[in-house]
Amino acid sequence: MQIDAVDFFYLAMPEIRAVADGSQDAVLVRVRAGQYEGWGECEASPLTTIASWVCPLSHGACRPVRDSVLGHRLDEPSDIGRIGALVRAHSMDLLQADHTLSGIDIALWDLMGKRFGQPIHRLLGYAKAYPKLPYASVLFGETGVETLAKGKRAREDGYRAVKFGWGPFGRIGPKEDQEQLVAAREGIGKDGILLVDAGTVWIDDVPRAAKTLKAVRLVDALWLEEPFATGALSAYAALAQQGGRVKLAGGEGCHTVDMARQMLDYAGVGYIQIDAGRIGGISAAKRVADLAVERGVTYVNHTFTSHLALSASLQPYAGLADHILCEYPVEQSALARELTREPLRAEGEEGRIYLPDAPGHGMAPDLEAVRKYVVDVEIKVQGRVLYRTPAV
Amino acid sequence: MQIDAVDFFYLAMPEIRAVADGSQDAVLVRVRAGQYEGWGECEASPLTTIASWVCPLSHGACRPVRDSVLGHRLDEPSDIGRIGALVRAHSMDLLQADHTLSGIDIALWDLMGKRFGQPIHRLLGYAKAYPKLPYASVLFGETGVETLAKGKRAREDGYRAVKFGWGPFGRIGPKEDQEQLVAAREGIGKDGILLVDAGTVWIDDVPRAAKTLKAVRLVDALWLEEPFATGALSAYAALAQQGGRVKLAGGEGCHTVDMARQMLDYAGVGYIQIDAGRIGGISAAKRVADLAVERGVTYVNHTFTSHLALSASLQPYAGLADHILCEYPVEQSALARELTREPLRAEGEEGRIYLPDAPGHGMAPDLEAVRKYVVDVEIKVQGRVLYRTPAV
Repeated sequence: MQIDAVDFFYLAMPEIRAVADGSQDAVLVRVRAGQYEGWGECEASPLTTIASWVCPLSHGACRPVRDSVLGHRLDEPSDIGRIGALVRAHSMDLLQADHTLSGIDIALWDLMGKRFGQPIHRLLGYAKAYPKLPYASVLFGETGVETLAKGKRAREDGYRAVKFGWGPFGRIGPKEDQEQLVAAREGIGKDGILLVDAGTVWIDDVPRAAKTLKAVRLVDALWLEEPFATGALSAYAALAQQGGRVKLAGGEGCHTVDMARQMLDYAGVGYIQIDAGRIGGISAAKRVADLAVERGVTYVNHTFTSHLALSASLQPYAGLADHILCEYPVEQSALARELTREPLRAEGEEGRIYLPDAPGHGMAPDLEAVRKYVVDVEIKVQGRVLYRTPAV
Repeated sequence: MQIDAVDFFYLAMPEIRAVADGSQDAVLVRVRAGQYEGWGECEASPLTTIASWVCPLSHGACRPVRDSVLGHRLDEPSDIGRIGALVRAHSMDLLQADHTLSGIDIALWDLMGKRFGQPIHRLLGYAKAYPKLPYASVLFGETGVETLAKGKRAREDGYRAVKFGWGPFGRIGPKEDQEQLVAAREGIGKDGILLVDAGTVWIDDVPRAAKTLKAVRLVDALWLEEPFATGALSAYAALAQQGGRVKLAGGEGCHTVDMARQMLDYAGVGYIQIDAGRIGGISAAKRVADLAVERGVTYVNHTFTSHLALSASLQPYAGLADHILCEYPVEQSALARELTREPLRAEGEEGRIYLPDAPGHGMAPDLEAVRKYVVDVEIKVQGRVLYRTPAV
């Protein structure tokens, strides 16, 4: 078999706002090889990703991503790693390529799953997929009262674990942060698992972060996520020492295995959060899961969009019984909700998330929904059309 | 003043080959504010860079780069840093943004130089620009005989320091590498400064790199550059311990200050090589130069393209008297050679490179040459033209 076709679809809500909701648009990828089809999604700027797929050759280490994918051999799961290595070598100087590769890699795993009649996690070498405990990922309210109400609602909806992030948090001062944190704890109750996401707000300013960390300890949160920019490793390491029982979490911005390895080795994080739609796909995410196990760090997915993206981000650590938390998007756009027909719902008394025991992702995009949200793009270079939105 | 216009130009040679010559195309950036104009260049995939500038909003942390630049205030050099921070925050999830910002930042420094009648290095706080010793950057020959001839020619052309890289080096075996290295040393003579560039060929394989490192020590090279991928910090650190007098060099792939800081802190490099056209511009490169001085590591530019790019990459360490080596491209394409009218030539008995003592870069693109190489691009989304190549 060889890779016969790869199609990129730019999907978007009719109106998009400049808020921290990454589910307002999507890059959907369809791969065809032989009689099989696979689907993937990357967490990326759609137009920029499409451009990196079709751009003309710049030089030997800055080739369009498609040159390392289209027409290449695809018989075994190991071929996916070979294709990824080729993309990295031949598009080394094309910065966007890691995001683009992510969607392709995920679609290739789906396709391989269908070919071998196996769920992706089994092809990755896991004997079984353990159920995960979902945490509801919500934005802080504008006021403490609003945050408290959001916490209550998440518990009423059945979530024992709730993550609050972004909004005004970290942007005013430690006193205001403490009010928000106390409200969040009150909202979810004493027995709730509280997670806090600072959204890189302190960039690399350890003293400012340390002031709010005190309040995070006070309300007994499990983790403080992304106090700093992804690469601010020494700031992470310095803050981690002041955390007590509160561990630091981070990693969603990693676009290579090396970046994640550096967070594991130098940042002192207790949780590594990987988005398969950014780090280079399921292949790269699985390597990070292996590294996390070696180092005694807990792996968690990062997902704020569709259930196709959720499946892709859960597969890499599905077989790790002790890494039980999973991020579960609850404030998605209609596009993200409608993208797949078979959502991953919390099941059983404990409300756990189970990956389907079916080939590939065990779910497919709802093509009628896709058609509703598809954005028409045309890119011409020297008068020649390099990309035009394909038929769904 | 505010930023009134930013124009991106995609320039390319008529024919482009998949070889390690990054000068075959270019992204040229023109910025206008008030009565002033500034020029910059980034080392990036042109079409992908243009897409990241004009792409529709995805969400609050994935905005088109232009939203953080166009219409923003620009009165003082400090405004450039503010704009860069805004791009990083608002395009955090747009991977290509760092490369795009690089060209804009460089053009903004040129514009500020013209406004204040000062060369860029003076605006950066340097009292004077020290002359640099250029090394000729050439590719290894296909055979040792060819490499020897290239070394001789570089010395005849007046270069005391010569860097050999890429080609077959590292791709066959340590014996073949040693033959190439012995030929290179013979070509440039005993008193020549020999630099070796492995072009990331060993990815993260320390034992394989160590075998060739022995030969690099044998021929008394000053540095071994990029044995591994930019992020393979622990591999760098392990190999650095076996280098003896040979230091490791790396850093050209860094697209953030944090990445460069990590190479300084964890990779054990003796030389940090920064391309202002990739790391986020002159602002980011200057911060790395400051960090290098603090840590006793020597800063070197990375430049393989035009003299506009060369100026941008020299400004950040122009005032560091002890950091004397500079990469000087000698095998550029006609496009890169013709892009500026005032090349930076080796001068004086010692053949040093002097930055012009004139406002901004002290050079400008040759617009006639630019017109010859300009590539027409049109990007349409939902029928609306987001980008069409502007008039030069």
